[in-house]
Amino acid sequence: MSKLVIVGTVAFDAIETPFGKTDKILGGAATYIGLAASHFNMDAAAVSVVGDDFPQKYLDILSNKNIDISGIEIVKEGKTFFWSGRYHNDMNTRDTLITELNTLADFSPVVPENYRDAEIVMLGNLHPTVQSSVLDQMVKKPKLVILDTMNFWMDIALEDLHNVMKRVDVITINDEEARQLTGEYSLVVAARKIHTMGPKYVVIKKGEHGALLFHDEAIFYAPALPLEEVFDPTGAGDTFAGGFAGYIAKTGDTSFENMKKAVIFGSTLASFCVEKFGTERMENLKSEEVHKRLLQFKQLTQFDITLT
Amino acid sequence: MSKLVIVGTVAFDAIETPFGKTDKILGGAATYIGLAASHFNMDAAAVSVVGDDFPQKYLDILSNKNIDISGIEIVKEGKTFFWSGRYHNDMNTRDTLITELNTLADFSPVVPENYRDAEIVMLGNLHPTVQSSVLDQMVKKPKLVILDTMNFWMDIALEDLHNVMKRVDVITINDEEARQLTGEYSLVVAARKIHTMGPKYVVIKKGEHGALLFHDEAIFYAPALPLEEVFDPTGAGDTFAGGFAGYIAKTGDTSFENMKKAVIFGSTLASFCVEKFGTERMENLKSEEVHKRLLQFKQLTQFDITLT
Repeated sequence: MSKLVIVGTVAFDAIETPFGKTDKILGGAATYIGLAASHFNMDAAAVSVVGDDFPQKYLDILSNKNIDISGIEIVKEGKTFFWSGRYHNDMNTRDTLITELNTLADFSPVVPENYRDAEIVMLGNLHPTVQSSVLDQMVKKPKLVILDTMNFWMDIALEDLHNVMKRVDVITINDEEARQLTGEYSLVVAARKIHTMGPKYVVIKKGEHGALLFHDEAIFYAPALPLEEVFDPTGAGDTFAGGFAGYIAKTGDTSFENMKKAVIFGSTLASFCVEKFGTERMENLKSEEVHKRLLQFKQLTQFDITLT
Repeated sequence: MSKLVIVGTVAFDAIETPFGKTDKILGGAATYIGLAASHFNMDAAAVSVVGDDFPQKYLDILSNKNIDISGIEIVKEGKTFFWSGRYHNDMNTRDTLITELNTLADFSPVVPENYRDAEIVMLGNLHPTVQSSVLDQMVKKPKLVILDTMNFWMDIALEDLHNVMKRVDVITINDEEARQLTGEYSLVVAARKIHTMGPKYVVIKKGEHGALLFHDEAIFYAPALPLEEVFDPTGAGDTFAGGFAGYIAKTGDTSFENMKKAVIFGSTLASFCVEKFGTERMENLKSEEVHKRLLQFKQLTQFDITLT
């Protein structure tokens, strides 16, 4: 059992999909990562910032799942980061309607004292210098650092992104971002280039088409579970990352073989996340449900060809 | 060991990709299906039509692979079907530059006498009434009929397509075609609707994202092998279908479990097809190479999560 540090936003989201819309609800990368990681037996702490407009009941959701929230700073008279977006009919693309950084603009994360020796660090999507500042606080080199990022930072802070990438073991990005970062269309070639930028392990998320895990010349492919209906994709990528990080932290095993399983757990948890608006499905997810869906993943992908 | 009847075009293709262009080369659905199916030990016959402008050496390629070509009609003073297309940079879309139906316009397929009791029938992409006329010639109900089709027939011959669909067991179409045929975006819902149209098994091809096999509520997902470079996608879908049909014919086993393996063989063979222009890679493909790539598919997809 390892300690897991989760860094990322804790936020208000307002979401529109073809199925309806929400008022301000609980959101943020660290929230989704924490809810997913809480399915594994370990010590985890979320490091983030909110304003004092943030309801205590939202923080309780995380602490009730045994996520240490002492690293979530509450800024007095501050307002919480707010994001609003609208998904298109195909659910694969979305428009950002509102981004209010608020307290996030001056976020200087502080890792709780007793988590500075954590073995696993999950850096959720944030400015790369903020991600770096978390690594600076670790008193010993973590066993595994996982970085999530997005095209926005490639556009406005590419050098900072390259700097933090040199310090991480695993990067998770989507297919278009991998292409943007490398200028390569082939994901195989793109992953190889990203290896040279630092991360020994590259996870490329392809949404409804699953995720690829690359390490040297080895590749593993976890499909997404084909779903009748995607209700709200918000948080699916963070949930995937949280399941991945959580499983690694629980097992303490950072081998490629174990990462395959971590990718499957990440995909499994993400398949629940999209079934309801926001965090609703993840808040009430039972371990029996996860267990059952893992069996579906096995049936979906496992075959028995004996080669003679 | 079963007999396999393959119906489809035997053609000239001229192909442009970002990597170069070809003059008129060997092409056609029945050609690719036959080359793929020839990797399995069985009796197979191709049923098609060409003009007498078609080089004997092209026909020899099929007969040298033990494909019976007595059902390929050679029309005297006729010209062979010719297709020319140009792929876009992403290799996922293409423009048709030239379609000359020629002898294909009046094609009336005749199944060789000794193949009218074949257990497996692979209906390559053709006008649905031509596909139906092949089934009319079978003297006993085949164990498995596989149908490939495309959006073109949905546009101009939808009723005929529905008629032939009622008579087949397996349909192979791509994701966009499944959506067009059903009006459903979700492939899970689309496959369920297609079941009600006739085929008990639905294979949805997603190109670089692999293929899904549906049967009742069961789903199997075969990924495509992530490739450094797709050189020419022409014939990949037919090669997939040929591998699928060939493996079923060889094993004589039409269970869902065996179809999973057939889908993996189809994906494996298709991964070679795209490596060179036209049929070049498939003409010289060795069984050791297929064997080796099947192992790659296992590594790509197989994991070992033991649930307690």
